[in-house]
Amino acid sequence: MPDTGLLESFANPSADRDYVIEHVTEEFTSVCPKTGHPDFAVVTMRYCPDHQCVELKSLKLYYQSFRNEGIFYEAVTNTISDDLVILTQPRWLQVVTDWKGRGGIRSQITVNHGPVPIGI
Amino acid sequence: MPDTGLLESFANPSADRDYVIEHVTEEFTSVCPKTGHPDFAVVTMRYCPDHQCVELKSLKLYYQSFRNEGIFYEAVTNTISDDLVILTQPRWLQVVTDWKGRGGIRSQITVNHGPVPIGI
Amino acid sequence: MPDTGLLESFANPSADRDYVIEHVTEEFTSVCPKTGHPDFAVVTMRYCPDHQCVELKSLKLYYQSFRNEGIFYEAVTNTISDDLVILTQPRWLQVVTDWKGRGGIRSQITVNHGPVPIGI
Amino acid sequence: MPDTGLLESFANPSADRDYVIEHVTEEFTSVCPKTGHPDFAVVTMRYCPDHQCVELKSLKLYYQSFRNEGIFYEAVTNTISDDLVILTQPRWLQVVTDWKGRGGIRSQITVNHGPVPIGI
Amino acid sequence: MPDTGLLESFANPSADRDYVIEHVTEEFTSVCPKTGHPDFAVVTMRYCPDHQCVELKSLKLYYQSFRNEGIFYEAVTNTISDDLVILTQPRWLQVVTDWKGRGGIRSQITVNHGPVPIGI
Amino acid sequence: MPDTGLLESFANPSADRDYVIEHVTEEFTSVCPKTGHPDFAVVTMRYCPDHQCVELKSLKLYYQSFRNEGIFYEAVTNTISDDLVILTQPRWLQVVTDWKGRGGIRSQITVNHGPVPIGI
Amino acid sequence: MPDTGLLESFANPSADRDYVIEHVTEEFTSVCPKTGHPDFAVVTMRYCPDHQCVELKSLKLYYQSFRNEGIFYEAVTNTISDDLVILTQPRWLQVVTDWKGRGGIRSQITVNHGPVPIGI
Amino acid sequence: MPDTGLLESFANPSADRDYVIEHVTEEFTSVCPKTGHPDFAVVTMRYCPDHQCVELKSLKLYYQSFRNEGIFYEAVTNTISDDLVILTQPRWLQVVTDWKGRGGIRSQITVNHGPVPIGI
Amino acid sequence: MPDTGLLESFANPSADRDYVIEHVTEEFTSVCPKTGHPDFAVVTMRYCPDHQCVELKSLKLYYQSFRNEGIFYEAVTNTISDDLVILTQPRWLQVVTDWKGRGGIRSQITVNHGPVPIGI
Amino acid sequence: MPDTGLLESFANPSADRDYVIEHVTEEFTSVCPKTGHPDFAVVTMRYCPDHQCVELKSLKLYYQSFRNEGIFYEAVTNTISDDLVILTQPRWLQVVTDWKGRGGIRSQITVNHGPVPIGI
Repeated sequence: MPDTGLLESFANPSADRDYVIEHVTEEFTSVCPKTGHPDFAVVTMRYCPDHQCVELKSLKLYYQSFRNEGIFYEAVTNTISDDLVILTQPRWLQVVTDWKGRGGIRSQITVNHGPVPIGI
Repeated sequence: MPDTGLLESFANPSADRDYVIEHVTEEFTSVCPKTGHPDFAVVTMRYCPDHQCVELKSLKLYYQSFRNEGIFYEAVTNTISDDLVILTQPRWLQVVTDWKGRGGIRSQITVNHGPVPIGI
Repeated sequence: MPDTGLLESFANPSADRDYVIEHVTEEFTSVCPKTGHPDFAVVTMRYCPDHQCVELKSLKLYYQSFRNEGIFYEAVTNTISDDLVILTQPRWLQVVTDWKGRGGIRSQITVNHGPVPIGI
Repeated sequence: MPDTGLLESFANPSADRDYVIEHVTEEFTSVCPKTGHPDFAVVTMRYCPDHQCVELKSLKLYYQSFRNEGIFYEAVTNTISDDLVILTQPRWLQVVTDWKGRGGIRSQITVNHGPVPIGI
Repeated sequence: MPDTGLLESFANPSADRDYVIEHVTEEFTSVCPKTGHPDFAVVTMRYCPDHQCVELKSLKLYYQSFRNEGIFYEAVTNTISDDLVILTQPRWLQVVTDWKGRGGIRSQITVNHGPVPIGI
Repeated sequence: MPDTGLLESFANPSADRDYVIEHVTEEFTSVCPKTGHPDFAVVTMRYCPDHQCVELKSLKLYYQSFRNEGIFYEAVTNTISDDLVILTQPRWLQVVTDWKGRGGIRSQITVNHGPVPIGI
Repeated sequence: MPDTGLLESFANPSADRDYVIEHVTEEFTSVCPKTGHPDFAVVTMRYCPDHQCVELKSLKLYYQSFRNEGIFYEAVTNTISDDLVILTQPRWLQVVTDWKGRGGIRSQITVNHGPVPIGI
Repeated sequence: MPDTGLLESFANPSADRDYVIEHVTEEFTSVCPKTGHPDFAVVTMRYCPDHQCVELKSLKLYYQSFRNEGIFYEAVTNTISDDLVILTQPRWLQVVTDWKGRGGIRSQITVNHGPVPIGI
Repeated sequence: MPDTGLLESFANPSADRDYVIEHVTEEFTSVCPKTGHPDFAVVTMRYCPDHQCVELKSLKLYYQSFRNEGIFYEAVTNTISDDLVILTQPRWLQVVTDWKGRGGIRSQITVNHGPVPIGI
Repeated sequence: MPDTGLLESFANPSADRDYVIEHVTEEFTSVCPKTGHPDFAVVTMRYCPDHQCVELKSLKLYYQSFRNEGIFYEAVTNTISDDLVILTQPRWLQVVTDWKGRGGIRSQITVNHGPVPIGI
């Protein structure tokens, strides 16, 4: 199971200001719940922190906890978004997953939480 | 004939949220109704689901049903858009077809259905 | 002379909808009226059709009719735009010409006709 | 069936010289004999002609005759090579097929006939 | 000295319409007034002409007149903008200079004159 | 310690106009305060000067003063922004840091100060 | 354990000729035996078949059997090479693994078996 | 007719040494003798001069003389090679023509004259 | 000082075979002994191991030990080569350093030790 | 005049070994002796030093001394080669100049001195 207990946050050092943090990994894999075959994605997470930031090493371990999980593209993307919103209560958050092709079709899922910051 | 009977949908697992799904295939081919020569396109489909999502394998089979169909660029693009709107009643849908060159001219057709979601 | 008589149109199969058609050729050439040397351009034409669409083969022949014409960059771009507006009365049309370098300077001319469609 | 009867040749205009001709198409498709799903390839053919050259339009029609043929990657590549050798008896010929991914694996098949010309 | 006397204009052939002309040169060089070392830039100039257009060959000669001039990045960019505004009184003009790195830092200066045209 | 004493400014030669200056370095390095391992970033700084511009050589030396400093990504980005705002009181300023991957995750931090200039 | 029992071969349809088959997957993952963290690689396999060819779907399943195996880069590469040599006894075989960065260092391992075919 | 009378040469300033000169134009066009449609190519010419070098402006005019000539790909390539050999008697010469696609097939013709220089 | 004591090796698991290992880092920095300014390089190391392989984490720490060392490009490259030869006694080793530009000049140094393996 | 007096060398620190040094500048400019217009080139110099290496800053100043010199492409390339051979007596040296287009033709000149080192 994706393990939210792995996620850690730290206090935003510049909480008086709107700014944007982006983390990209090309090393995400989960398993298709229908076929049992592995899926591979590039996961991009962008957010405007409020009081808490995501700790980077804990994010890596959290992503790794999807490795042997049978879960659909849409659920991966919404789950990551939901878990990070609960953890950090960001002013804005966006999760984009880019999946390598299956049956000749590549897919991308984009989830937004909160209003896009001005000037980003 | 493009066979809409091949298309299947499933319930949107996050219908309370606006988000965007994109499917891209580089393996689309149909036939020019004037010359009988094959046409090749990259087809990009993006949508914001309401209650239903397009099932990926059924989309692949639906695209394959154009293979020996004599049909113009504009009709391919509008037909795909119309069929997917009937199937899923999306909040927004966009179909873009990029056709390899004919007579030294490359073409692209873009069809939108519904208002573009904010922040996408 | 650029020969508008070569241009043909056909009835827009989806005239009830705003959508966009783009045709790109990398095989456009005309002649500089000052020096007599050939000019080479990539010509991109985008439009939102109303009742008529440009027939693709006739567009190719029309472009070829500039081959030995002495004509400036600005005139090529505005002429193509004017001729296509007369032919198809589009809701929106854009012509962009990208010229290979002369004297170490590359040039691009962009002409718009009508309001840009929403969501494009 | 791939139709060799479509292939035509013409007399090499410079048969006294070793030189190389390459033809590349990104518009090749056949059908997987196991699954019935379409396969898509880029086909590159290079040869050093002896007395005969391949006529370009006939090559296009010959490639199109594979469209609904159930045939493996290896057979496509060896068949094209064999048919062109019979047609033109070239001094050297190479056929390379680049197949879009199946099950996350992209494939390429390379067949050579005769010694590679010096200086190529 | 940058020589504005080299600049020539001609009457805009389509003054009844807003359109955009872009000229790009990768062959601009001047001299750093502090160190005496040469500077190299890509210069992009875009404008929406009113009654006058910049003549292309005169622009090339004008750019060449900076070759041995000791002048800062900011001054080059503002000077080109000012000189072209005086020459052509455009509806809109933008000058962008991209400078190769000095001390491991690449720089870009962007100057705008007048309101950006709609749809560009 | 990042040394703001290294930073120098000079009078904006075109203070009557809104324009944008961008400086990019691919040669930024600091040290992770947790692990002691070096971090590497591309740092992009864009601003619309008011009365003062950043002197380029002083910027390079200022960046070099982070070399052996233990400091987090977020602090690097906000510190550079704060120091440059104090130095030049710009109309607008943006700092973007692109960090090479750690644990398979690449990161980017974006800080804005002031309203984005129109037309940029 | 990497499961060679998954691998299947089929009779080379053109065994009278030297030719080359290449299979590339961007979806290979195993586990670092030291840290327990996942490793990701692009695996390229090229060979000149003798009497047997590797069956493509079985190759995919074989690669998937490394997913939760703790194994070093060098062992992955040599193991794949050894297993395929046992399976197909090829005239020539090359395995190249490209590993995403660890600690800021990307790695590639290349193993050859048998003499490189002429003209490849 | 391609006009060899346009070609001029000048004395090789370093005839005591083997060295290589390459000239590339992306602005070559001729006419298909079968269809009357224009063909477009990138022409690359490399040679090791003996006593004479090709004068660059004369080469441009020579290339322009093919503009309205009905001539096949193979003949263009061999004709350029032959004309330049007659003009300059080079130690080695190579002409490569890259033709934009016709009927979905791109072509390249390569002609060599004399032995390839060592170390090139 | 570059600290060879940091380097560790492990027994080559396939010493009976010639194969090639490549490690690339984009995170190398040292200091110019003349100016005191930092230098940045991409370092590529390739080798054919005999009985010992370079341990990857120790290689990273060894590279980091150049961080504050005043040392010329040539010396960096030859020192890395010499230290790795002493450590692993490889059958072949190549070190390539790619240095970011200084004064508008980018540099690359390539050192080889031993004969290049066949087929690599 | 190109000023060889600017060139300086230093003792090769690893003269007992064959290795290769490459210096690339994108900031070379001279003047066409026929038209008086500036020419721009990328200059790549590679050599295998014997007892002397080229000092990098002196190379930069030497290249700058061509700035206002009227000199042909071939002469630039051979002159740089000759001057560096006199300065350093290298085991091997190669100079490649890549010139931006004139009249739609880009040119490259390659000069070699001495035998190419093995394994480079």
